Amino acid sequence: MKQIHVVESVLKASEAAAGENRRRMDAAGLLAINVMSAPGSGKTTLLEKTIPALGAQTPCAVLVGDLQTTRDADRLGPLAVETVQINTGKGCHLTPGQVAEGLRRLDLRQFAYVFIENVGNMVCPAAFDLGEHVRVVLLSVPEGDDKVAKYPTLFQKADAVLLTKVDLLEVLDFDIQRVRDDLSRLNTRAPFIELSSKRGDGMDQWLAWLAGQREVWLNYTK
Amino acid sequence: MKQIHVVESVLKASEAAAGENRRRMDAAGLLAINVMSAPGSGKTTLLEKTIPALGAQTPCAVLVGDLQTTRDADRLGPLAVETVQINTGKGCHLTPGQVAEGLRRLDLRQFAYVFIENVGNMVCPAAFDLGEHVRVVLLSVPEGDDKVAKYPTLFQKADAVLLTKVDLLEVLDFDIQRVRDDLSRLNTRAPFIELSSKRGDGMDQWLAWLAGQREVWLNYTK
Repeated sequence: MKQIHVVESVLKASEAAAGENRRRMDAAGLLAINVMSAPGSGKTTLLEKTIPALGAQTPCAVLVGDLQTTRDADRLGPLAVETVQINTGKGCHLTPGQVAEGLRRLDLRQFAYVFIENVGNMVCPAAFDLGEHVRVVLLSVPEGDDKVAKYPTLFQKADAVLLTKVDLLEVLDFDIQRVRDDLSRLNTRAPFIELSSKRGDGMDQWLAWLAGQREVWLNYTK
Repeated sequence: MKQIHVVESVLKASEAAAGENRRRMDAAGLLAINVMSAPGSGKTTLLEKTIPALGAQTPCAVLVGDLQTTRDADRLGPLAVETVQINTGKGCHLTPGQVAEGLRRLDLRQFAYVFIENVGNMVCPAAFDLGEHVRVVLLSVPEGDDKVAKYPTLFQKADAVLLTKVDLLEVLDFDIQRVRDDLSRLNTRAPFIELSSKRGDGMDQWLAWLAGQREVWLNYTK
């Protein structure tokens, strides 16, 4: 039987690459945010609203992970100072190597924030450190109030949890308390922000959280 | 450097296990349907409506894949003749081995249909044959009309594509023609059924498709 030898250090190499990404971004003075959720939870729409709201004082770059197409990058391109589309082919999450490749295309010193929009997937991205400083997880109202308990790893590692599309609470059965209860068993650290990118609910809270994270991190890296 | 030897035939073993599952289900005279979608597209709700509608003449079993919890199985347990929850832990899709294990818990000769509700994920499940006879892929209106192009592999392999939650078309911007156009480039074989499990739209068409698949397959296995 034919054998393939796999070097045990693959995961270690992935961790090392993530660390290297973080060091490069630290040196450049920018905060990196890994944005994760199921497909269609509103990651791109959130960034479409966030980037202009942050304004020219805190310029943003975006790395966008997708299996195929440049549809998200096409939407974000006109808003962010720079946008890099990473097509993963059949890859179910971004890897630190792909992020390193994306970062190489950017002049990092220009930016205050880099948003890394991961592939839409509630499972695999949770397992990979990309070198980000903070992790934001979105759950949209139409996905249902049972998802925190069903996909615990993703929510456990979140630094902030955003409940998106809250404008649909009026037309859908969704028990926010159930989500809060499930979160309280997994992650008491992350703030829970109820948000509608469409209507604007929660945007102030989200932008304040982002600014606070940047401040904490600037003090830390000083 | 320490090395781990990985036998090349892992994928072949997976294919063999899928083939064995299919043979067992063929021998028992039941049709197996692999139901795939993103988290929260309405797989469980669809089955909640489908199983009673199929009626006692065509009894159903369900295998439900989830990372954690028995929430879906709890919902389906009272409806299906038998329900098996498969918890995959951190596994991002069901494997043929897990399905084989699930099938061993069932007296297969009792059933006309086995629904295999895969883990909510638009990427990884597409790559694994579980031994099913047909593949059904759900896309829900709130996920957005760009998902067929962004997750092509899943839609390419579908035997039927269900657009779910069409009751939300009234409150969301969603271009059905865009989805049809994207599908026409990937998969012209699968019927496209517009469905609302909540309101009942499209259920007749879906049930007719299921009955038709069973008929075709019964003739084929005779």
